[in-house]
Amino acid sequence: MTDRELRVSKIENGTVIDHVAGGQALNVLAILGIDGSEGTVVSVGVNVPSDRLGRKDVVKVEGRELSQSEVDVLSLIAPEATINIIRNYEVAEKHRVERPERVVGVLQCSNPNCITGENEPADTEFEVLKDGVRCVYCDTIIRKDFADHILA
Amino acid sequence: MTDRELRVSKIENGTVIDHVAGGQALNVLAILGIDGSEGTVVSVGVNVPSDRLGRKDVVKVEGRELSQSEVDVLSLIAPEATINIIRNYEVAEKHRVERPERVVGVLQCSNPNCITGENEPADTEFEVLKDGVRCVYCDTIIRKDFADHILA
Repeated sequence: MTDRELRVSKIENGTVIDHVAGGQALNVLAILGIDGSEGTVVSVGVNVPSDRLGRKDVVKVEGRELSQSEVDVLSLIAPEATINIIRNYEVAEKHRVERPERVVGVLQCSNPNCITGENEPADTEFEVLKDGVRCVYCDTIIRKDFADHILA
Repeated sequence: MTDRELRVSKIENGTVIDHVAGGQALNVLAILGIDGSEGTVVSVGVNVPSDRLGRKDVVKVEGRELSQSEVDVLSLIAPEATINIIRNYEVAEKHRVERPERVVGVLQCSNPNCITGENEPADTEFEVLKDGVRCVYCDTIIRKDFADHILA
């Protein structure tokens, strides 16, 4: 194995999501809508040793800066994550993910009868709890598989 | 960003699956039954530049050597892959994936009435075609989503 094979390419422009909870990287990719078939250049480390977290995941996405709503959903599965925006090979911005109090228009309620369902004009809105999110309209609580509830 | 952050850890013992077709890395992980929650240390490069393939994926799995049946299924989605078995930080074995003529006892037939279905004693057996696999019992052809058809 050459040294070159051991490296993950330094990204020119994009986002590095670091300090993701160990084992959550594939959920991060799902939240970002990345499965590889769309051609995005991505590198991922899963369950790598970390001083702070014991184990952590790292996700590097070339050519894309995350939107605030993407960061909001990330905070639900990776509350300790740090987000580095890379421009021209340098860290241009460094953010700590902050759990928002509310998540508006990002997740779909899992209750099919909720007023925020299809063909309804209301935006979805969830109150962020310690261990999940609660729909402010119908009180349905979502505790996991957030990636499956992201609105297209 | 430090140089250290740019590196994927050299693996001590495990498998490096290189020259996977671009965008297929997550399917490789699915075939290997890895989603991160089981704690496996993995690093993945998706759509990275490759002289031979244009774009390729690379998957490095710590602490695991692939079985022949896993390699057989990998060959269906990553016919160009090379598999390096790493022991004590060195490449101990290097294999090119070879498409087998038959895949026995690995994939489940998608025809629910096939004789190889649940509660039947027959092992599944597929003939490998250029663009998929054909069940030798009921002629059902599977052309994609092989990861979804792997027997537990």
